[in-house]
Amino acid sequence: MPKPELLETFANPYPGRDYEIHMTCPEFTSLCPLGGVESDAAELELLKGGAPDFATIEVTYVPDELCVELKSLKLYFWSFRNDGIFYERVVNRILDDLAERVKPRWMRVTGDFNIRGGIKSVIRAETGRR
Amino acid sequence: MPKPELLETFANPYPGRDYEIHMTCPEFTSLCPLGGVESDAAELELLKGGAPDFATIEVTYVPDELCVELKSLKLYFWSFRNDGIFYERVVNRILDDLAERVKPRWMRVTGDFNIRGGIKSVIRAETGRR
Amino acid sequence: MPKPELLETFANPYPGRDYEIHMTCPEFTSLCPLGGVESDAAELELLKGGAPDFATIEVTYVPDELCVELKSLKLYFWSFRNDGIFYERVVNRILDDLAERVKPRWMRVTGDFNIRGGIKSVIRAETGRR
Amino acid sequence: MPKPELLETFANPYPGRDYEIHMTCPEFTSLCPLGGVESDAAELELLKGGAPDFATIEVTYVPDELCVELKSLKLYFWSFRNDGIFYERVVNRILDDLAERVKPRWMRVTGDFNIRGGIKSVIRAETGRR
Amino acid sequence: MPKPELLETFANPYPGRDYEIHMTCPEFTSLCPLGGVESDAAELELLKGGAPDFATIEVTYVPDELCVELKSLKLYFWSFRNDGIFYERVVNRILDDLAERVKPRWMRVTGDFNIRGGIKSVIRAETGRR
Amino acid sequence: MPKPELLETFANPYPGRDYEIHMTCPEFTSLCPLGGVESDAAELELLKGGAPDFATIEVTYVPDELCVELKSLKLYFWSFRNDGIFYERVVNRILDDLAERVKPRWMRVTGDFNIRGGIKSVIRAETGRR
Amino acid sequence: MPKPELLETFANPYPGRDYEIHMTCPEFTSLCPLGGVESDAAELELLKGGAPDFATIEVTYVPDELCVELKSLKLYFWSFRNDGIFYERVVNRILDDLAERVKPRWMRVTGDFNIRGGIKSVIRAETGRR
Amino acid sequence: MPKPELLETFANPYPGRDYEIHMTCPEFTSLCPLGGVESDAAELELLKGGAPDFATIEVTYVPDELCVELKSLKLYFWSFRNDGIFYERVVNRILDDLAERVKPRWMRVTGDFNIRGGIKSVIRAETGRR
Amino acid sequence: MPKPELLETFANPYPGRDYEIHMTCPEFTSLCPLGGVESDAAELELLKGGAPDFATIEVTYVPDELCVELKSLKLYFWSFRNDGIFYERVVNRILDDLAERVKPRWMRVTGDFNIRGGIKSVIRAETGRR
Amino acid sequence: MPKPELLETFANPYPGRDYEIHMTCPEFTSLCPLGGVESDAAELELLKGGAPDFATIEVTYVPDELCVELKSLKLYFWSFRNDGIFYERVVNRILDDLAERVKPRWMRVTGDFNIRGGIKSVIRAETGRR
Repeated sequence: MPKPELLETFANPYPGRDYEIHMTCPEFTSLCPLGGVESDAAELELLKGGAPDFATIEVTYVPDELCVELKSLKLYFWSFRNDGIFYERVVNRILDDLAERVKPRWMRVTGDFNIRGGIKSVIRAETGRR
Repeated sequence: MPKPELLETFANPYPGRDYEIHMTCPEFTSLCPLGGVESDAAELELLKGGAPDFATIEVTYVPDELCVELKSLKLYFWSFRNDGIFYERVVNRILDDLAERVKPRWMRVTGDFNIRGGIKSVIRAETGRR
Repeated sequence: MPKPELLETFANPYPGRDYEIHMTCPEFTSLCPLGGVESDAAELELLKGGAPDFATIEVTYVPDELCVELKSLKLYFWSFRNDGIFYERVVNRILDDLAERVKPRWMRVTGDFNIRGGIKSVIRAETGRR
Repeated sequence: MPKPELLETFANPYPGRDYEIHMTCPEFTSLCPLGGVESDAAELELLKGGAPDFATIEVTYVPDELCVELKSLKLYFWSFRNDGIFYERVVNRILDDLAERVKPRWMRVTGDFNIRGGIKSVIRAETGRR
Repeated sequence: MPKPELLETFANPYPGRDYEIHMTCPEFTSLCPLGGVESDAAELELLKGGAPDFATIEVTYVPDELCVELKSLKLYFWSFRNDGIFYERVVNRILDDLAERVKPRWMRVTGDFNIRGGIKSVIRAETGRR
Repeated sequence: MPKPELLETFANPYPGRDYEIHMTCPEFTSLCPLGGVESDAAELELLKGGAPDFATIEVTYVPDELCVELKSLKLYFWSFRNDGIFYERVVNRILDDLAERVKPRWMRVTGDFNIRGGIKSVIRAETGRR
Repeated sequence: MPKPELLETFANPYPGRDYEIHMTCPEFTSLCPLGGVESDAAELELLKGGAPDFATIEVTYVPDELCVELKSLKLYFWSFRNDGIFYERVVNRILDDLAERVKPRWMRVTGDFNIRGGIKSVIRAETGRR
Repeated sequence: MPKPELLETFANPYPGRDYEIHMTCPEFTSLCPLGGVESDAAELELLKGGAPDFATIEVTYVPDELCVELKSLKLYFWSFRNDGIFYERVVNRILDDLAERVKPRWMRVTGDFNIRGGIKSVIRAETGRR
Repeated sequence: MPKPELLETFANPYPGRDYEIHMTCPEFTSLCPLGGVESDAAELELLKGGAPDFATIEVTYVPDELCVELKSLKLYFWSFRNDGIFYERVVNRILDDLAERVKPRWMRVTGDFNIRGGIKSVIRAETGRR
Repeated sequence: MPKPELLETFANPYPGRDYEIHMTCPEFTSLCPLGGVESDAAELELLKGGAPDFATIEVTYVPDELCVELKSLKLYFWSFRNDGIFYERVVNRILDDLAERVKPRWMRVTGDFNIRGGIKSVIRAETGRR
């Protein structure tokens, strides 16, 4: 289950300047919802046929008072590992969780998911004004 | 024969936000119209000399109330497999069928067709305002 | 259904020399057998959930008395389009059909199939001595 | 000698929508003018030292009432094969010939010529408003 | 915990010929052993700091009487998802499990693991004679 | 410790024209702050577990009266080698140091840092108007 | 019509040493034989539907007493421009013509022809012992 | 010493249309100024330690009445070969020399110089309005 | 100064099988010896003009009783960071240090060093029999 | 004129081990012989039409008692800059000069020359036994 409480922040060392931070995590994995129902009873689900999903998550933002701490972001991403969750929710949820903690001037989250059924999906959402 | 009735939708989980969904299918195939006449009598046509066409189809859209269900999109693409149909119609037809079902805020469809006669063709059409 | 009778040959113009001919067809498609049973009732099968397979087929050979005619090879590959057939059979069948018609000094067939279930498969078989 | 009379058109199947057609031909060849004089006495010229030129030609347009037929475009490109002609004229001439036949809403032609004398040349011209 | 009992086989359709089957799975994931102790108490471990590992697993073999069924191989790979296990054991264990079930004439397994601590690791093991 | 006093300049030879200078250094290295505390007691820190960081630094600017001398820029970059310093500070500090010396019409600095904990970071800051 | 009389040679400056010369010409073009009959009535043929062929020709050899002069090789390749000729003959003919003039210790010729009918062809022939 | 008198022009064959000509020369070489002093006593300088510089020069322009002749441009570039000259001057000088001869509606020159001291430099200047 | 005492090992979990372990570290850095004299007085040297060197180090080995522990290998590589040392010594020294600790059946070390003075260097050494 | 007296050597630090040193110089340039006559009156020649040649030179060797010093190799390569010399002589000459100074156990030199007249040339020569 996504654990936004894992996210930690530190004070932006250059709050007087609009600058951009871009982070890419090529090792995101969650599970496909079993029978279209989202769930976190992962191991059970996995052996019944719920497929793992793999994605590269990109986060770009212009910090205001806070920056997200890199190691805590990694732990937060790990907390999706055994969750059955839709692509659209993954991306919008990450955006909501990060925006609530970091309160950036602008933020964009992109999820680039591996091919499933011969089709590749990319979801992109953003908040704030650049 | 393209079967738009195969397309299924689900409720957009984040309708309050403008965000973008991008899907790429590198395994689209249809047939070239025999003697310039479009048809769905495929196997017959195939052996008379109507050549298979291969394309990568990309669909990008901003959902409103609905999202297209990924597996149903795959089945819909498969329904072109034995049809004799022009490139221009493939792309505009997919756009029409998807737009009618999903009613997106904006949608763009691109068909990137393999080389024929030493020439590569890419067709792109869109609807709505981004 | 694979139609080896489509394969045509022509006399090797340089039979006195061992030389190599290599052909690559990136547009091979067949169907996955439905419920593990191979079949050629394709359209029916397709809509019940039998997935199309896509592959690049490579044929390399040293001709003896005959060469395979390029256009007839293309038509022969097309004849797999609506067949439900296993990967292993695709590759070994092509090798058998071609070797029987062309009687090469040596021949190798490789099928490089697109990702299915997150796994990519390549099958390679050969006959004769190089 | 370029033969615009080879170009054929067909009725745009979706005239009510602005959409884009992009074609790429990586197999364009003509001859370099001998002694800077353009000519179509090709074979003669070739052996006197007029060098063949090779280019990739790209055509992008938004159709109005007509689309260019793909096979006729290929034949039209072939008609430059034995002509001595400057790069700048190749690109502008193709644009003029196509625009006159197809009467597009907008069209752009790009010629990307292979290295000569260690220098690569790309010429791009367009007509109409996008 | 790796579950070799998930592996299924089918009869090799061409047992009279030595041919090669190559499968690549770019979506393998397991966990790093916590404090150097291998374990399958995964979720607990994950939040204490045991890092997920990601790898591409390649299996190449020459079948004898049996082939491994593709979907069951995928399920078998998924069964490592929540295990704390060393790289060296992952590769040798997969080789042992597959060789025991499939009894190939020859088999090689390669694990290509993502960068950790700025160092990339590839482990390769084989059994039988080619 | 970053040594901006190493930076040397020379008179812009074409001050009457707005033009752009872009420099890329793929060999930037500094140290990760130990326990989150920035420091320059590098060797000590290194053996206690503070990890080296590696980045590609890009600097783009429109010169006014002065240009930065290339060799002095290299020496300035080297002066970060044994410093414990955050990514955000690296990029903003380089921008401040260069802008103060070179007084450009516009300048942008990008730091593209190698993967740490499976996540890649890129930081970008600029000053002035283009 | 191929003109081997265009080929010129010069004395190998280092005949006492076995060394290798490799030349690649990415701009080879000839014509497809019309109705399967080889011919040199090119322009006529071109407009009746005989398609131009494009290939990259590679020549590798170990010289004995003679080397082939680079510019004359280019002119010799140009002499195929308006000939209707099969792939297999192109490669074996170039090998024969070059070997007769240059009398190398060993020589290999490869013709890598552009996709036709969705199939790419590569022909390779050699003479002598390496 | 740069020799702008080598540059030749010819009349733009399509002066009634704004179109773009782009030329790329990947084989530009000059010398680094010895001890920071620009000079053309090249061979002497070379052996004292003045390093050769290598660059790709790109020129893009919209012609007015004149086009630059390709072969003369090559000779002009060659005239920098034994000159000790700064990067910034190379690019601005080429722009000045070409603009004076060709009098284009718009022109841009880019010099992309090979790595020196671990740093890559790209200089870009333009004149006129696009 | 290289610190081989940092290297740690663990018992090979599959000593009964010859298998291969390959590790790549793209983040190796040391210093160029100042005036051709190797030294470890790094910071001093750095500012006098001794240039940092950057390399990718690859280690491949067949373990016998022991495997090298990945994290300790990283720390060992870090211990070269402030040393003035020749390329040839870097590679042979790493081979000696690792072979002494790990006692592999076979081992190869490759150092792929970044361009210096326009020349790239790769050094490769091995020990034992494969 | 090539100046082998520029080449300097140093004592191989590990003469007891057969290991391999590989150096690549992508910035080699010489001149094409004017009218087929080799010469070193370069500047004169350059303006009469003798074209500069560009190549990547690769040197691989197993040292015996001596290694070639990297900076002196660079200076030696520079000494070809204004020489009119054939490709075959460039490569064999470098091999002779280096082998005479360094007396390696084995050495190979490859010259990969840029396209001239649409043809790319690679020359490779070696000496000694590997």
